[in-house]
Amino acid sequence: MDTLAQKVNRILEGDHAEIIAKVKEVLSRPEFAYENPYDYQNFRETVLKWCKILADEGMGSIGYPEAYGGKGDLHRYFTVMETISYHDLSLVIKFGVQFGLWGMSVLNLGTEKHHQKYMKAIGSLELPGSFAMTETSHGSNVRGIRTTATYHHENQSFTVHTPVEGARKTYIGNAALHAQAATVFAKLIIGEEDYGVCAFIVPLRDKDGTILPGVRIEDCGMKMGLNGVDNGRIWFDQVNIPKENLLDRFVQIDEHGNFQTPIPNRGRRFFTMLGTLVGGRIGIPKSALSAAKTGLTIAIKYANHRRQFGPKDGKEVLILDYQTHQKRLLPLLAKAYALHFSLEKLARGFVSHQGQPEEMIRYEGLAAGLKAYATWNTTKTLQECREACGGKGFLSENRIGILKNDSDIYTTFEGDNTVLMLLVAKSRLTHYKETYKDLDFSDVVNYVVNEAIINITELNPITIRDTSDSHLLDFEFYMDAFTYRENSILKSAARRVKSYLSDGMDAFDAFNRCSNHFINLGKSYVERIVLRDFIEAIGKIEDTAVKASLTRLCQLYALSTIEENKGWYLEQDYIVGNKSKAIRNMSVQIGKEVRKDALDLVNAFQIPDSCLSAPIAFSALG
Amino acid sequence: MDTLAQKVNRILEGDHAEIIAKVKEVLSRPEFAYENPYDYQNFRETVLKWCKILADEGMGSIGYPEAYGGKGDLHRYFTVMETISYHDLSLVIKFGVQFGLWGMSVLNLGTEKHHQKYMKAIGSLELPGSFAMTETSHGSNVRGIRTTATYHHENQSFTVHTPVEGARKTYIGNAALHAQAATVFAKLIIGEEDYGVCAFIVPLRDKDGTILPGVRIEDCGMKMGLNGVDNGRIWFDQVNIPKENLLDRFVQIDEHGNFQTPIPNRGRRFFTMLGTLVGGRIGIPKSALSAAKTGLTIAIKYANHRRQFGPKDGKEVLILDYQTHQKRLLPLLAKAYALHFSLEKLARGFVSHQGQPEEMIRYEGLAAGLKAYATWNTTKTLQECREACGGKGFLSENRIGILKNDSDIYTTFEGDNTVLMLLVAKSRLTHYKETYKDLDFSDVVNYVVNEAIINITELNPITIRDTSDSHLLDFEFYMDAFTYRENSILKSAARRVKSYLSDGMDAFDAFNRCSNHFINLGKSYVERIVLRDFIEAIGKIEDTAVKASLTRLCQLYALSTIEENKGWYLEQDYIVGNKSKAIRNMSVQIGKEVRKDALDLVNAFQIPDSCLSAPIAFSALG
Repeated sequence: MDTLAQKVNRILEGDHAEIIAKVKEVLSRPEFAYENPYDYQNFRETVLKWCKILADEGMGSIGYPEAYGGKGDLHRYFTVMETISYHDLSLVIKFGVQFGLWGMSVLNLGTEKHHQKYMKAIGSLELPGSFAMTETSHGSNVRGIRTTATYHHENQSFTVHTPVEGARKTYIGNAALHAQAATVFAKLIIGEEDYGVCAFIVPLRDKDGTILPGVRIEDCGMKMGLNGVDNGRIWFDQVNIPKENLLDRFVQIDEHGNFQTPIPNRGRRFFTMLGTLVGGRIGIPKSALSAAKTGLTIAIKYANHRRQFGPKDGKEVLILDYQTHQKRLLPLLAKAYALHFSLEKLARGFVSHQGQPEEMIRYEGLAAGLKAYATWNTTKTLQECREACGGKGFLSENRIGILKNDSDIYTTFEGDNTVLMLLVAKSRLTHYKETYKDLDFSDVVNYVVNEAIINITELNPITIRDTSDSHLLDFEFYMDAFTYRENSILKSAARRVKSYLSDGMDAFDAFNRCSNHFINLGKSYVERIVLRDFIEAIGKIEDTAVKASLTRLCQLYALSTIEENKGWYLEQDYIVGNKSKAIRNMSVQIGKEVRKDALDLVNAFQIPDSCLSAPIAFSALG
Repeated sequence: MDTLAQKVNRILEGDHAEIIAKVKEVLSRPEFAYENPYDYQNFRETVLKWCKILADEGMGSIGYPEAYGGKGDLHRYFTVMETISYHDLSLVIKFGVQFGLWGMSVLNLGTEKHHQKYMKAIGSLELPGSFAMTETSHGSNVRGIRTTATYHHENQSFTVHTPVEGARKTYIGNAALHAQAATVFAKLIIGEEDYGVCAFIVPLRDKDGTILPGVRIEDCGMKMGLNGVDNGRIWFDQVNIPKENLLDRFVQIDEHGNFQTPIPNRGRRFFTMLGTLVGGRIGIPKSALSAAKTGLTIAIKYANHRRQFGPKDGKEVLILDYQTHQKRLLPLLAKAYALHFSLEKLARGFVSHQGQPEEMIRYEGLAAGLKAYATWNTTKTLQECREACGGKGFLSENRIGILKNDSDIYTTFEGDNTVLMLLVAKSRLTHYKETYKDLDFSDVVNYVVNEAIINITELNPITIRDTSDSHLLDFEFYMDAFTYRENSILKSAARRVKSYLSDGMDAFDAFNRCSNHFINLGKSYVERIVLRDFIEAIGKIEDTAVKASLTRLCQLYALSTIEENKGWYLEQDYIVGNKSKAIRNMSVQIGKEVRKDALDLVNAFQIPDSCLSAPIAFSALG
């Protein structure tokens, strides 16, 4: 008979069990033995070698069209990233830079001629490349970048140039050592006119790795983590590239040297281009979640084994049986499960709606929000796991430390989390705009405030006092609570912005003055979606034991999220004080139930034992 | 005229300006140039060399009596630790192991003969040593350690022995390479009798560094941080030491081979011995605070320089002018100041009440609480600072990453924070026991519950609704709110324990069932003390501008702490929903005011520029 862990694992892996097994098989080969990540010059070469093996196994190109050697299976590409992340995060980032950022930018921003020329070489890692967007002075504000690509009609070429120090490209993965070319984002200049940010393929090194004339590259050096990735800085000094190197899906230059585009609105064009790159915001939170799952597996296994203190003259007690320890780890286990289902649904939906721009806008907002929520959660989870393992958590033989260091930057790259949450909030407000296309931002705000388009439940004086077990364990109560919070914050945020705008405040200032409020809006939206997806996933489970176990996890996720926000709920009179206390007590009680399954629930992740500790790597240092 | 930063610095440094300047002068010498901390075999030797220089300058022995080459100035010893922490945390921990743990254990647990023989050699670092308490199976639960020291009256000696694998000493600083001796904690066995945990001086290596017979030492290897400290594991195989090596201040063996002690109660004796070592719980939070101050200096300077986004066609905006950025960093700045004054007061009080056992018990509780509160705060602060610096925060040239890694274990060593907070809570309950000595634990609980000894303010229906600026900015409001919270939680925690005990539950289980509650009790106590000390410090300031600036910081500390706990306050009807919102708005408003002084307030820490980045160390790697 199957164990609970095995049954849950089947739910988690679904129809991707085969690709997961395949990736694990590759990663279990002797070439993938861990080594010292701080000996970074060697480690970078190792990680390149690891990427090459994965490419040879067809993992890099799996998301590309079959015509270019791929399998046309973007969803499995995300699963590959997720699985690689159990082994090493430098590996998944180097892999993601090459096959995701570099490859997908050529695929999504380029056209047939680029695909023909580059995609096979990218997918096989014959042509290592970079994604050169971020500049020293402009990270979050990509529209402000200052690298230029000036068109010369006379010889059908562009000159790519770094006009000021702040326009150097920075933190560029693959750049310090291996990239032979890059997708470079630069402002397209034709004549005197600036046509805004476009993307170009710029060669950086020849086949022998010699840096090409006009290109200067500096190593970003050692970092807190991800030291297997060679991040670098790039300057261009009047570098010439042929006209065909413009990635011309959304911008073209015609035979007369005139600018052409299917999307004349500059802002819309910019966001459409960026929108095609949103896949990174699915791969990254999935990778982050794998790191959180690894940390939880280590910490929960340890807590189920380690004893300390106990009743007088009795046996010492397992630390997982301490109320405080349960409170630290089990809500995070619940959240990891919640995020698993939500990210899976996001990936599936994103992949199946490719080529539907209206749908894509929705997925962009969702991906931004989940990326921020999942990566912050990983930082928090690994911190708790480190502390929950005490001194053991600090030794390098325990992989929590390296996971913490490697994943720390996840909250910054692929979009700074705070900036993303603000973006999500704005998209929640302006999603009404999609329906009423002629409205501008302040019209939308007015509309949201004045019309009854946001459905806010009437508070029921009995429900706000209901502390019965059946109510506190009811999915409907949770959905109502999460939805109520999201809608109320949305309405009140809109109201505040409107009042500032009415006072004549500049839109930027008005938005800034409400930005703490908007962060809460973003979070409340994401939390509602995550809960919805978790409940939906549970609804599909047939096995009684699995369903009961995941139901308790979902209850713990919902209750602990409401508890975290109890200040807000009490402020709004959504619950009374006694109910707030009852929620806390119920959360402790459900935690005790979840504790019974905890070992099964981490075993269900089926993270290879070799990924839970790294004794070899570090004895090799001694 | 002095700047605000200079004036505030004088308040912070007080009469320790001279020793701080002296330490900084030493640390600014070329020998202290940064190097790669991950090249740990070299780095460990460098850190030893650094310690030696500090010892030669008299910094190591500064807290020892003048008779043994010291200055008898324990308070300045803490200030030395705090200042060294700006430079490097491996250094301060190696320093603390040698001069604090090793030296102070000999000083406080030993007697005249030990002081004569060892103290000068320890203070000069001629005799490097360790503090071998923690065992693999027993970290937090020190009374459970299993190393034995068996007395042999016939030849006036002890045999020190590791009877089982779980009794090996572990994570022992200085042990892997440098210690020539250690204070070893072991159960004293005389005949068949086990007299509980005592401390012994056990030689580990000879002058040449050769490990002595019967001793086995293993390197703990690479760690997440603090790689300049050589942590090791130690096993003893029937190691013989002379009788005089028993640190015999609290336990003696008389000339007939009989056990003697001035404190016959075994539990009290154990805690008295540990109590003399409480100094570490003052040095560690002070060191942690220095790391937080360094992170805040880096992040706030960066935020006051970095621009991103802005109004249409306007200049980009400093990121410190974003509401979200202010909310992330400025309450942490306020908390750093709050902790500064509280830790200073703790150090001063602890030093001036040496030799007064009743007072010491109070300081032990306070030190445990502040250690946990300050070190958790450092972890949180450095995390926010890393994220607030974006990609820059991830590069090793920025010291935030190394500070994060080095300080992460601070929440575990010198007592796991969760265990400490539970200890604090217990000490708050049983502090009534001191007054009523004949009560046992459950009597105390009954007493607390039944008698009106805890003063809980009557809630005033006007005050709970008062949203006037003058009220929200009033120190009296804050003190009342913090005190009310502490006392209410104390009373309700006692009530809960009592009800479990009345139901016949075992005391251990009853306490465990309330432990989330007790954690809150510990925190609320510490927060009340920290606020009280901050207000008291501000009361002594004469300069108007400084007083106004620190008053705003204190307001921000109090308001953001109340905001963090608003769920609790609302549950208890201490405030109504509207007041909760008003507190949040006032906190944002005061944050904007604090932002104006923010640069001065970090400059007032006067952290050397060389401690804010480490470009040399890491270019040397390239």
